Amino acid sequence: MQKKTKEMKETPFSIELKVRDYECDMQGIVNNTNYQHYLEHVRHEFLHTVGLDFSKLTEEGTILVVKRIEIDYQFPLRSGDRYLVDCSPVRISPLRFGFNQNIYRLPDHKQIISAYIVATSINKKGRPFLPPQIEEIFREH
Amino acid sequence: MQKKTKEMKETPFSIELKVRDYECDMQGIVNNTNYQHYLEHVRHEFLHTVGLDFSKLTEEGTILVVKRIEIDYQFPLRSGDRYLVDCSPVRISPLRFGFNQNIYRLPDHKQIISAYIVATSINKKGRPFLPPQIEEIFREH
Amino acid sequence: MQKKTKEMKETPFSIELKVRDYECDMQGIVNNTNYQHYLEHVRHEFLHTVGLDFSKLTEEGTILVVKRIEIDYQFPLRSGDRYLVDCSPVRISPLRFGFNQNIYRLPDHKQIISAYIVATSINKKGRPFLPPQIEEIFREH
Amino acid sequence: MQKKTKEMKETPFSIELKVRDYECDMQGIVNNTNYQHYLEHVRHEFLHTVGLDFSKLTEEGTILVVKRIEIDYQFPLRSGDRYLVDCSPVRISPLRFGFNQNIYRLPDHKQIISAYIVATSINKKGRPFLPPQIEEIFREH
Repeated sequence: MQKKTKEMKETPFSIELKVRDYECDMQGIVNNTNYQHYLEHVRHEFLHTVGLDFSKLTEEGTILVVKRIEIDYQFPLRSGDRYLVDCSPVRISPLRFGFNQNIYRLPDHKQIISAYIVATSINKKGRPFLPPQIEEIFREH
Repeated sequence: MQKKTKEMKETPFSIELKVRDYECDMQGIVNNTNYQHYLEHVRHEFLHTVGLDFSKLTEEGTILVVKRIEIDYQFPLRSGDRYLVDCSPVRISPLRFGFNQNIYRLPDHKQIISAYIVATSINKKGRPFLPPQIEEIFREH
Repeated sequence: MQKKTKEMKETPFSIELKVRDYECDMQGIVNNTNYQHYLEHVRHEFLHTVGLDFSKLTEEGTILVVKRIEIDYQFPLRSGDRYLVDCSPVRISPLRFGFNQNIYRLPDHKQIISAYIVATSINKKGRPFLPPQIEEIFREH
Repeated sequence: MQKKTKEMKETPFSIELKVRDYECDMQGIVNNTNYQHYLEHVRHEFLHTVGLDFSKLTEEGTILVVKRIEIDYQFPLRSGDRYLVDCSPVRISPLRFGFNQNIYRLPDHKQIISAYIVATSINKKGRPFLPPQIEEIFREH
């Protein structure tokens, strides 16, 4: 079990995507802002794998909120590049949870981005509220 | 051979993609503008299959230019939807070429978008110039 | 009165904006898709001037829907360009209304885009429903 | 003089903008990613005021590169909100320069975002190169 947990940490949830030309700016590389799009998309896909649907949560009045984002830009992606975005959950405090995320170019796995995201969750009244499913995901991490 | 050409027309080049949550607006559906992103991405991928790299063409000074776009919005895509975008080339005139494109939701193939795009190509001096590869693609269509 | 109406047609509602560098793509010009963003923004601002708030309508369950868009791209905008986007309403049918829109570069008023947008409106049940305010705007046009 | 410098620090370069509806996501608030767009736009406008044109630098082969971004999200912007984005340069090291940036909602000046951006600059060969104008801007800060 111990071993399995360790392996899980070594191979976090990830998705392979491809740069779209409209994501590149006048420098001919992916505009910085789009990496944040990639990271968000893969966080939401990760949440799906644990039974959380961002769209349904929103409709039901549970608002997941990013509080802080730190992104280190190591190397740019270019038109046509394929890349891998991963997502590892990190529990921070009773009301805050986080994600470590990386982007690697494929097939050479050159690191493009490393990021750390801190989030929380509020209900319709704007008060902190973590749905039980979120509690569960982050309990073990 | 005749038959093969016909079959090719019936099954145009297409790519399967998935809606990303950041593409949805406050109506909870994909913002109209993003369909144009999808269409552009798939046109560029189509051009790749016939040996044309939008990014390289740009670097070399050949600028592909959209002159007109007509889009009929039939039904919206939502968070989590998978969809298919196709792309069929159409020759319009000596200096203009076009594309018929459709977007279908998967797996039910409900039509989301039908679009018609007219494009041309200019060189560094801003004068009309169709590279021979483009001539070739559109000759037979 | 006659004269005033004519004048109004000659000087439609318009907003002056400036290209932001992230809107430019690898060709060094504004990506085609962003013009649709500009057009949408100015339509929504136009609706505000006649008492319609897209965001509030959405919250209340009235969904304004674009059904068709035709855009002619005449000349590209570049980094740093200022431009004017206008918006003139056109009544099309009992359930459809439209907008003629143009984008002009400033200060030389060179035409960048001309567009024609067809829209409708549905209620929460997905049935056609034009709120009275929309009826009123388009009655006289 | 001393006083003037202090005053300058207290009123950094800033631009007033307005939320566009397409920047809002299904939560009805501005999507996190768009704040990065706002920050970038205002950094580029700041550079203009000191004689640096991001677009021209790019054409000439000087690539300004964001290396790290830290953003604290304090409160969301909504449809129709007006806001102020500021930009204060900070010298970090011989080859790195930074910016402190804030976004405030108008007219109540509620803080929306605080951000810290670290950047560098490379030449055509991918080697660190700070153009003299950049040296000058950051010398006194």
